[in-house]
Amino acid sequence: MTDFDLTVRNAHIITATDDFHGDIGIIGGHIHTISDHLHAGQRDIDAGGRMVFPGGIDSHCHVEQLSSMGVPCADDWHSASVSAAFGGTTTIIPFAAQHRGQRLRDVAAHYAAQAAAKSVIDYSYHLILSETDPVTLREDLPALIGAGITSFKVFMTYDKLKLDDTQLLDVFAVAAEYRALPMIHAENNDVILWIARHLLARGHTAPKYHAVSHAPAAEDEATARAIKLASILDVPILIVHVSTQGGAQAILSAQTLGAAVHGETCPHYLLLTAEDLDLPGVEGAKFCCSPPPRDPASQEALWRALKNGVLRCYSSDHAPYRYDETGKIPNGDATTFKQVANGLPGLELRMPLLFSEGVRTGRITLNEFVALTSTNHATMYGLHPRKGVIAPGADADLVIWDADRTVEVTASGLHDAVGYTPYEGRIVTGWPDTVISRGRVIVDQAGLHAEPGSGRFLPRDTPSPVLTQRPPPDASRFLRGLLSSHLDH
Amino acid sequence: MTDFDLTVRNAHIITATDDFHGDIGIIGGHIHTISDHLHAGQRDIDAGGRMVFPGGIDSHCHVEQLSSMGVPCADDWHSASVSAAFGGTTTIIPFAAQHRGQRLRDVAAHYAAQAAAKSVIDYSYHLILSETDPVTLREDLPALIGAGITSFKVFMTYDKLKLDDTQLLDVFAVAAEYRALPMIHAENNDVILWIARHLLARGHTAPKYHAVSHAPAAEDEATARAIKLASILDVPILIVHVSTQGGAQAILSAQTLGAAVHGETCPHYLLLTAEDLDLPGVEGAKFCCSPPPRDPASQEALWRALKNGVLRCYSSDHAPYRYDETGKIPNGDATTFKQVANGLPGLELRMPLLFSEGVRTGRITLNEFVALTSTNHATMYGLHPRKGVIAPGADADLVIWDADRTVEVTASGLHDAVGYTPYEGRIVTGWPDTVISRGRVIVDQAGLHAEPGSGRFLPRDTPSPVLTQRPPPDASRFLRGLLSSHLDH
Amino acid sequence: MTDFDLTVRNAHIITATDDFHGDIGIIGGHIHTISDHLHAGQRDIDAGGRMVFPGGIDSHCHVEQLSSMGVPCADDWHSASVSAAFGGTTTIIPFAAQHRGQRLRDVAAHYAAQAAAKSVIDYSYHLILSETDPVTLREDLPALIGAGITSFKVFMTYDKLKLDDTQLLDVFAVAAEYRALPMIHAENNDVILWIARHLLARGHTAPKYHAVSHAPAAEDEATARAIKLASILDVPILIVHVSTQGGAQAILSAQTLGAAVHGETCPHYLLLTAEDLDLPGVEGAKFCCSPPPRDPASQEALWRALKNGVLRCYSSDHAPYRYDETGKIPNGDATTFKQVANGLPGLELRMPLLFSEGVRTGRITLNEFVALTSTNHATMYGLHPRKGVIAPGADADLVIWDADRTVEVTASGLHDAVGYTPYEGRIVTGWPDTVISRGRVIVDQAGLHAEPGSGRFLPRDTPSPVLTQRPPPDASRFLRGLLSSHLDH
Amino acid sequence: MTDFDLTVRNAHIITATDDFHGDIGIIGGHIHTISDHLHAGQRDIDAGGRMVFPGGIDSHCHVEQLSSMGVPCADDWHSASVSAAFGGTTTIIPFAAQHRGQRLRDVAAHYAAQAAAKSVIDYSYHLILSETDPVTLREDLPALIGAGITSFKVFMTYDKLKLDDTQLLDVFAVAAEYRALPMIHAENNDVILWIARHLLARGHTAPKYHAVSHAPAAEDEATARAIKLASILDVPILIVHVSTQGGAQAILSAQTLGAAVHGETCPHYLLLTAEDLDLPGVEGAKFCCSPPPRDPASQEALWRALKNGVLRCYSSDHAPYRYDETGKIPNGDATTFKQVANGLPGLELRMPLLFSEGVRTGRITLNEFVALTSTNHATMYGLHPRKGVIAPGADADLVIWDADRTVEVTASGLHDAVGYTPYEGRIVTGWPDTVISRGRVIVDQAGLHAEPGSGRFLPRDTPSPVLTQRPPPDASRFLRGLLSSHLDH
Repeated sequence: MTDFDLTVRNAHIITATDDFHGDIGIIGGHIHTISDHLHAGQRDIDAGGRMVFPGGIDSHCHVEQLSSMGVPCADDWHSASVSAAFGGTTTIIPFAAQHRGQRLRDVAAHYAAQAAAKSVIDYSYHLILSETDPVTLREDLPALIGAGITSFKVFMTYDKLKLDDTQLLDVFAVAAEYRALPMIHAENNDVILWIARHLLARGHTAPKYHAVSHAPAAEDEATARAIKLASILDVPILIVHVSTQGGAQAILSAQTLGAAVHGETCPHYLLLTAEDLDLPGVEGAKFCCSPPPRDPASQEALWRALKNGVLRCYSSDHAPYRYDETGKIPNGDATTFKQVANGLPGLELRMPLLFSEGVRTGRITLNEFVALTSTNHATMYGLHPRKGVIAPGADADLVIWDADRTVEVTASGLHDAVGYTPYEGRIVTGWPDTVISRGRVIVDQAGLHAEPGSGRFLPRDTPSPVLTQRPPPDASRFLRGLLSSHLDH
Repeated sequence: MTDFDLTVRNAHIITATDDFHGDIGIIGGHIHTISDHLHAGQRDIDAGGRMVFPGGIDSHCHVEQLSSMGVPCADDWHSASVSAAFGGTTTIIPFAAQHRGQRLRDVAAHYAAQAAAKSVIDYSYHLILSETDPVTLREDLPALIGAGITSFKVFMTYDKLKLDDTQLLDVFAVAAEYRALPMIHAENNDVILWIARHLLARGHTAPKYHAVSHAPAAEDEATARAIKLASILDVPILIVHVSTQGGAQAILSAQTLGAAVHGETCPHYLLLTAEDLDLPGVEGAKFCCSPPPRDPASQEALWRALKNGVLRCYSSDHAPYRYDETGKIPNGDATTFKQVANGLPGLELRMPLLFSEGVRTGRITLNEFVALTSTNHATMYGLHPRKGVIAPGADADLVIWDADRTVEVTASGLHDAVGYTPYEGRIVTGWPDTVISRGRVIVDQAGLHAEPGSGRFLPRDTPSPVLTQRPPPDASRFLRGLLSSHLDH
Repeated sequence: MTDFDLTVRNAHIITATDDFHGDIGIIGGHIHTISDHLHAGQRDIDAGGRMVFPGGIDSHCHVEQLSSMGVPCADDWHSASVSAAFGGTTTIIPFAAQHRGQRLRDVAAHYAAQAAAKSVIDYSYHLILSETDPVTLREDLPALIGAGITSFKVFMTYDKLKLDDTQLLDVFAVAAEYRALPMIHAENNDVILWIARHLLARGHTAPKYHAVSHAPAAEDEATARAIKLASILDVPILIVHVSTQGGAQAILSAQTLGAAVHGETCPHYLLLTAEDLDLPGVEGAKFCCSPPPRDPASQEALWRALKNGVLRCYSSDHAPYRYDETGKIPNGDATTFKQVANGLPGLELRMPLLFSEGVRTGRITLNEFVALTSTNHATMYGLHPRKGVIAPGADADLVIWDADRTVEVTASGLHDAVGYTPYEGRIVTGWPDTVISRGRVIVDQAGLHAEPGSGRFLPRDTPSPVLTQRPPPDASRFLRGLLSSHLDH
Repeated sequence: MTDFDLTVRNAHIITATDDFHGDIGIIGGHIHTISDHLHAGQRDIDAGGRMVFPGGIDSHCHVEQLSSMGVPCADDWHSASVSAAFGGTTTIIPFAAQHRGQRLRDVAAHYAAQAAAKSVIDYSYHLILSETDPVTLREDLPALIGAGITSFKVFMTYDKLKLDDTQLLDVFAVAAEYRALPMIHAENNDVILWIARHLLARGHTAPKYHAVSHAPAAEDEATARAIKLASILDVPILIVHVSTQGGAQAILSAQTLGAAVHGETCPHYLLLTAEDLDLPGVEGAKFCCSPPPRDPASQEALWRALKNGVLRCYSSDHAPYRYDETGKIPNGDATTFKQVANGLPGLELRMPLLFSEGVRTGRITLNEFVALTSTNHATMYGLHPRKGVIAPGADADLVIWDADRTVEVTASGLHDAVGYTPYEGRIVTGWPDTVISRGRVIVDQAGLHAEPGSGRFLPRDTPSPVLTQRPPPDASRFLRGLLSSHLDH
């Protein structure tokens, strides 16, 4: 008789496809057996018929990273991973961010060391590229891809991060050759700065003008451009944090033509609007992120795009800047919208918000909830089938979910170090009960049970072929051929 | 220690989401346990590392049905279910077809009795409605939906089956009220007859003119019309056997607006073209089906539509008419294209063809293969999670797949009663090795092991909410309200 | 020195293209000379720098026609032509309507005789086909086309007029062969009746439910269907009275593919909405027409479609039913929305409304105003270059326009026999000052100067090649060939 | 009796709208009278029933301009204007090109002086902006707009001309404020250079690789971007020399939303393909222009786009570089595709090519021919109604056209100084017979009759309101308000 380290019994198990009642037996941190009935293991948890999901995967969050404006994250790997765990997320993939002049290899090594020391859950990280010199693109990046860091983000905006179109083509060429996934922050930098300049010149400094300067046209344009540039080499890409109907439409059009163009969105684009920035003084800064929340028509378009594969991932884009002079409002009440650190916290609330506003309202199904919060991240980023599934051999990352628990959101109830939440006072229904990482109960009613550094690094595969596509068109094939032969020399 | 009736061990298990190696333990016809390792059950099969899929579900096939032209099917429930089983399919959902003047309840009862006596695999059936009188729509149909027959097909073409737009609205109203799924054969009858009349008047009688008369415009038009009519009540529908780019585009447009409009396609639209009908004499009749195979551009569009959710089901549309005077060519060499019985056999080859031409060419992934051949049919037609999944509690319907077996297709190698195959001589790679239905090995190297009548009827749920949609628009809600209050009186 | 019968001098002359100041010299009813300066003719009119347009052409109006429900028009050829003349329109093209069972040739002959006796302005007429028997399609219609009646309207709705898809294909085949222009009333009859039936069953009888029953989906569907059917033979068509965004979009899509599909709209779709039908009692009947007025978003879409060639004609669709028991409300206060005679008067206000709401608001230019009210009708219906232009050789049909005259619309101020106007009380700016038909001043400040029967019949050419298109696609060419060879036999 | 300086009698007069036979009387260089019949003037030309068009307007040609690569034009104002005249064009609008570091005012003054001294036909010129400093944008440009130079071209490609997105917004702001028309060369510079770099690195230097480097994606992307940037301020723009289906589609989409986005194309995109560049040695250089000729599908799309208002102007983009070391092939046989001067000659053949390939094939009508070669240029660029029309008061610019004259094109038969033509050996039907500029016969069978400097400068109005649009959206209005108030300070 198999002796399980842990059993989770009497569970209503939901995966991206399945929905059944049964017991889960865990050995050595892996799911060993799924069954109608198992004998209790060394430790046994009675799920009491509650739902059990694969542990969440948050593939877009910022942890212990210096922003390009030099603003430090309030969350380090410890607080962030703890907050994630309390929200049902058992894997995070934040960013090792190369600032201009830094060597990518060193940035990654430093970041990996921080993570290893502190994270209480498993993790990988993406790279952020701000340089495209040969050392970065031809030495460090291939080496890191080979070491399992198979995705990287590039920016089309922010003065200190922005790549121009030539640089985008250069990184796409590397992505095509080494089969890594570029993630694109698609906003037109010139447009944003140009509008902002004119707003500031007229004294329009309040946070709400942040949303005016980040015009939908800036996102629509950059999204279309990124897709066109990627089409030249027919390289798969992911557009992160899609916020506009135009952006979602551009992705759909590309997909319809057979291109491997994917999209991601975040809670704030589904639940907040630009009107939330219109608060007295500088308090609107609490809602400033890029792109900004839009309007109800955009929200509706994004909910639809979650249903039909246009937006395959739902991430927090957690950006832990405090609402004080260390973060959001460096100049206190005199802070202009251009000085506000961009980004919202959301790691811990990501799953409850989608469950409450998506599943309980009937907008998405339970299976879709699992796909959007976990499984699709695993396939997108090369963690599948180790993560994101409930199947023998997979890591035993599970969340027992209390579908009926109603919680009033407060910053003080959360476990990050940010000190505020844009969802303060919101009532959500559905909350994690018990969170299990590789067979360890890391969160339960009694609180946290995990030591800093107990999370493990996850070397990742290249993206799943589910995301790739028909053979490339002739023109792309010719150019790819040109590049690879060229690169031999 | 659990005592399994059957174990399938050393399997490479593929579901619509997962991909792992393990053992499956079966008790009482159900999957009881999935595990890294199980002890051998009463009976033990070593899968030898081969792939194991959920048994195929073919939700569109014609079995022991009299065509509207009075042509009998060569396959009865026995031969059809045997052929399906040999092809890896463990569930079929053919049609109980109401001909004009027949009482729906009687048609269904008669059909159910035939199935119960003969089928070797589990089954349900859809209804085909050719009458929309109150007894059909308000007595028999609701009663049958209540008894688990939750889908029905209606025709926009064929003189003896065709419903007009008023009738479509009437059946959509019933579908909306009782949450059944209408399946639509979308071709414009007038267009087809009109072109055919002029072709025949000029002596163009050869089978290849069948494809001319069934113009793409006829399908595009009817597809768009069905979608528009369904939008009035915001009722989910499925467009069966989509063959044109215009049809796929119409479905995509509706989905983009948030409508629950779904599509299905069949092997012949992916693999054959209208040129296949251009054979000497009347031999082109072997390739006559409605809609007809189209052209390479349409094939390409359909492959893309399989990837992005536009075409969620892949069915055989098996129509077992022999190539002789009982079937395809009632008047022998003098048969005109309007006299050819419409439809192609394909039950047994459905899964091998998609595996060979889809998976092995890289067009679709293994997970997509499972979704398209099995899981999506279960969710579409209310069989989920009993069928289409490999999970505890599900029926133990499994196919052990030999991914590398290469077979030259011949009619004589198949188990249906049709006597020819449109794929004669084609080489396919990937073939079922062992087929298990509710824990019974029904097909293995030794052949068939199942008695007529051993298959069971599957009462079905209403379609999965994954297929439904956002709350209906105001106008639809008003009309739905109008109808249901009206119906109370 | 040329001796002119009439000179119009000091004019600001506007055509569909040009805009200049000058004098116009007229001899024998034709424009003879246009010049910077002319000597006064026998009669001389000083335009005083006011605008001079080509006389308006109203190509869609109902005059002295029995409706299919048997409701007589309040306007006969005399009152209608007088009302048109007072509104600046010098050519009308109403309909000789074949009711079921009538011989088309007789209908036309009878209608021509009425017109010849009474009209004060030039005219032609379209046919309305309600039968598609061989005598109608193969004898009378070709003969009438040959006699200059080169357009005909068909209905996809109204029980007593509706053609089914086979009949539409039959008439399109004749149109293709003889180069006549089909005009389509595109609404899905079944949809309208089906909704109406349920509305009435619930006691929803008020006029406002007319707009509910004529759902936008009914128009969108029928428009798309007509376009698809026409595409089979690649025959040019005109969709009359487009009222929805979906209808305009369908036309645009066809045009983008190169098809000769054209659109028309009317004042009420630009200026009224369904809310106008929501009046106490049955007074909403004053606003009942088919299709009904829609909503502000549709209006906006139609204004845009007037700019880009999607909607090439702007007509009144004048339907002169009195608001009494002879017309709109046959059962007085007990009239249900299905009993209301469909259609609105508008012949006289057509040009003032577009000038006031289109030109003066900046939505359209003066040249576009001329094109939409006159020139495009001439090219569409084979009257160009005799009508619709100001050029030597053209008929001297002119309207001297007082661009600054402000008028409060009242029924009593109009010259039709309808007795009410849906625009009662509306202030319009821009009004005809003097109207000239073939060199005769027929309206001036002193009133009417034209005898019944002084208008002339205009035999028309086939539509201008501006409306036709690239060579037909292969499939259409094959079918056209089939038909014409077939017809030889 | 009016005494005409010149009469053109017995003419078949075609305008953008009209088509009639008559006589034209000219006094003082203006059209004075158009009539059925006039007495002969001082000079009388018998058109013999031949067509008479408004003189052509070529609004996109390069004359006596130094390219940004320093390559001189073979044609100065004299040879270019002579060549234009021989081709039926009586107005040209080339470019006063600011190179980096030059003061715009000086560039314009210098260019105006050259033109005044040499041109034999009337002219204006556009500006090319390569600097966006305050002196250029806020002093010189407004002054030049005020002086009648109401349009300017900007480049999104070419290293020495390219404006970035910020600069585009800056120039759009000036265009919005002063109502000038930006013309955009829309190709993505980075894409072109990036592909070219890789091609050259592999030794692909032949002219045919020019077309590979200027990928359709580069044009599609830049076109979409320009339109998006213009939408921010809702400023009308013209995309010049559209060559791709994607470009035409982007313009159509914008127009459908109501934006004033216009397109232009040129003979080579309708008549040549990239295959024409594939010649031995460097001879393909004769066909190198930017964007390059594409493929038959693109040609077909452009012909359709000429019909529906997407492409409103048809220009030559005459770029007179000789096929020798002064021009196309600076390094002789060693010239790489990046060294080839970009552009093709075409001033003289523009009208004959469109007549032959457009009118005679039935693709466009005579009225459309006039609109595309003349009238639409006048309305687009503020020359209407002085140019582009045949109406009293307009300049007497006329071309008597021999619609049946067949000519074999040879470089030696043309009057430019280029020495080759890409259409060598092509047979065209339709050729100018007599060309009249402001009442002067400048070209007839006897040759040229015009002195250098006899052409006049045409100060231009702002673009016709036909090209503008509905009131700007709220967001644009806010930004426009912001800018103009800001600019006050």
